[in-house]
Amino acid sequence: VAIVGATGLVGRTLLQVLEERRFPLRELRLLASERSREKSLPFRGEQTAIEELSKERIKNLDIAFFATDAAISREFVPLTAGDGALVIDNSSAFRLEAGFPLVVPEVNGEEIFNHQRVIANPNCSTIQLVVVLAPLQRHFGLKRVIVSTYQSVSGSGQKGLDQFFAEVKGEHVIAPFYPYPIFGNCLPQIGAFDEDGYSEEEVKIMAETKKILGLPELPITATAVRVPVPYCHCESANVQLQLDFNLQEVRQVLAEAPGVVLVDGLTYPIPQQARGRDGVFVGRLRRDPSVERGINLWIVADNLRKGAATNAVQIAEVWIQEKERWEKLNR
Amino acid sequence: VAIVGATGLVGRTLLQVLEERRFPLRELRLLASERSREKSLPFRGEQTAIEELSKERIKNLDIAFFATDAAISREFVPLTAGDGALVIDNSSAFRLEAGFPLVVPEVNGEEIFNHQRVIANPNCSTIQLVVVLAPLQRHFGLKRVIVSTYQSVSGSGQKGLDQFFAEVKGEHVIAPFYPYPIFGNCLPQIGAFDEDGYSEEEVKIMAETKKILGLPELPITATAVRVPVPYCHCESANVQLQLDFNLQEVRQVLAEAPGVVLVDGLTYPIPQQARGRDGVFVGRLRRDPSVERGINLWIVADNLRKGAATNAVQIAEVWIQEKERWEKLNR
Repeated sequence: VAIVGATGLVGRTLLQVLEERRFPLRELRLLASERSREKSLPFRGEQTAIEELSKERIKNLDIAFFATDAAISREFVPLTAGDGALVIDNSSAFRLEAGFPLVVPEVNGEEIFNHQRVIANPNCSTIQLVVVLAPLQRHFGLKRVIVSTYQSVSGSGQKGLDQFFAEVKGEHVIAPFYPYPIFGNCLPQIGAFDEDGYSEEEVKIMAETKKILGLPELPITATAVRVPVPYCHCESANVQLQLDFNLQEVRQVLAEAPGVVLVDGLTYPIPQQARGRDGVFVGRLRRDPSVERGINLWIVADNLRKGAATNAVQIAEVWIQEKERWEKLNR
Repeated sequence: VAIVGATGLVGRTLLQVLEERRFPLRELRLLASERSREKSLPFRGEQTAIEELSKERIKNLDIAFFATDAAISREFVPLTAGDGALVIDNSSAFRLEAGFPLVVPEVNGEEIFNHQRVIANPNCSTIQLVVVLAPLQRHFGLKRVIVSTYQSVSGSGQKGLDQFFAEVKGEHVIAPFYPYPIFGNCLPQIGAFDEDGYSEEEVKIMAETKKILGLPELPITATAVRVPVPYCHCESANVQLQLDFNLQEVRQVLAEAPGVVLVDGLTYPIPQQARGRDGVFVGRLRRDPSVERGINLWIVADNLRKGAATNAVQIAEVWIQEKERWEKLNR
């Protein structure tokens, strides 16, 4: 098993999640760009050397987790898969391409077996949204979704955290990552704007949600905002359903949905409490009086865990389990 | 002229705005509760004594700005108005009561003359929303409004700022104002929840918007969230209009609307740039593909200025100007 991009925030979280979940592996290879300063990272009590990513080092792998940017993924993912490994790619490179399943195991886990050795891991904001939308779709049908995000700086990787914590300490930031200070600010831009005025993150949320839910015509719009919070993304979602509902039914559906943790009533999900956990936390359930069959929800998850590393590892776990079952049946 | 509650955040901002705008007054009386530690505050280059609020000290006033909580307003506003002063009350005490105009001068300035000596100043989040909604209603008609807020801690007064800045410095907060840490967090609760699950702030936004726009049946829903930002509130608004539009028309309508500053295209409004200014900044204009005649907007304003002090002073200015004109005509 390899982690490509092991020294980044998602790479490190992958290392941690693999260790926590006792992921079955004989050897872990940590690969990173030559820029990485670290020489090794701890895994299962031992320091594991970090090697430079190259065409040689991606050979003879069973599973490769890519936590790299889209350009690196476009170059190395096909090579790695071509050599026989199953690749789970966290970048946006293949997410929307036909033939590449885009998977959240609780939502469309069956897609894990439709791959040609490459499975795409969705965008962090999308994952926590679809984990909540899927059970609503299943029980009531989705008619329209409007989402506004409150996204933490760790979503931009270590560069985002570095700028934020330097600004908190009042330090001068020589090469800021964001175009404006993030501490004390809210920035309604995540990625470049397209000709319709939507940011890359907003386009990802809309397009990936449709693909994962298998609803290419789902009416959905998004506003993505970076807030001065280090970890966890929040979302204010307004959802119009197809079928009548009462709130108690919706609560029950969400409480029983895989991956969802309902925190509703006098309490509600917050970043501080979602940090380090794998659930998608949902609360603030209210009927929206402005439309028929409308509901408001507040969704919080750790963007580095369920929003990235945990989801990728879960995909690999399902694949291993089913592969073993299939091999047993055909022995 | 008096400021009642002069030592609070809104009270101090009132003092500053009256000075900046050269508000016509012979004498300024500063009143506060006995808890206030300060003895005086600077106004027009001189220290002005702070006196304890009492039934004696609210007599013989022309105009009284109340920046007190609803309980104090309920007790002292009727007494002050009964003695002959025009009261502009920033609390929620009278906002929704019949016979009490709730005024944003750019939106329903004509209501200033329908009062019985008490005019209510709306909630901060409501003011910046209606300044943008009013021109849209005038030109295209409003069909439905969905708003999610990103509200700064100064909206909770000095207590909010104190907790925030203590947490930023890593200090232990002995008597925190918020139920959870606010630094590094987002709290989807502003005020107590009602039986439908809406917070007080959300109810204010919905009810006050309807009253100010004169649209008691307007379909509107709100989600109010406290974010770790010291000054300025942001809002992600999704608006469905009655009439067809093209984005260029909407941009022009907003660019020409009183009180609105359009910051659209490659830039967008942010708290850091709205701080200390009186405009309501709007940008991120995008057609919402999920519904007919839908539009997304991002609205930012300084909650202490246009959201509170500036709006109150503007109400007084309109009243004085019209009163003088009327007196001249009838001389």
